[in-house]
Amino acid sequence: MPRVVVDVMPKPEILDPQGKAVLGALPRLGFSGVADVRQGKRFELEIEGELTEQVLGEVRQMAETLLSNPVIEDFTVSVETPVAPVPGAGA
Amino acid sequence: MPRVVVDVMPKPEILDPQGKAVLGALPRLGFSGVADVRQGKRFELEIEGELTEQVLGEVRQMAETLLSNPVIEDFTVSVETPVAPVPGAGA
Repeated sequence: MPRVVVDVMPKPEILDPQGKAVLGALPRLGFSGVADVRQGKRFELEIEGELTEQVLGEVRQMAETLLSNPVIEDFTVSVETPVAPVPGAGA
Repeated sequence: MPRVVVDVMPKPEILDPQGKAVLGALPRLGFSGVADVRQGKRFELEIEGELTEQVLGEVRQMAETLLSNPVIEDFTVSVETPVAPVPGAGA
């Protein structure tokens, strides 16, 4: 079953309090070397049937109307090619 | 500045009420053809300096201790190759 991934991230000019909270926590946990953190959402959609250009267009519409808020968020739609599974191979 | 992406998704055997809510909303919005939706988190980390194997190991530790809950979530760490910016090219 083909899988489409929609990544939703806060726009660069939008404050991202969740990302800032993570960034602030890193030094307290002993981690250094990270200059910035942004936190967003990832949606994995399992598509019924074949992945046509029309289906991808519908997914873009879903991303724009339901999965993201276009005022404050950007989204990207990407296809995870359904590679034939290799027995025993880890993900 | 190199960017590392940490994707955190609920484990397959864990219920995902957010994903189920999206899945339930799709037909009401007129969308069909989606069999399942899983919702997770995406973190974009801007790394200071060079991206060494040691830095990546630290990011994996961050993902395990701060960014995810290993009991109910899986994470993947991937590197977004810092391609030289092309002036005027959109993302």
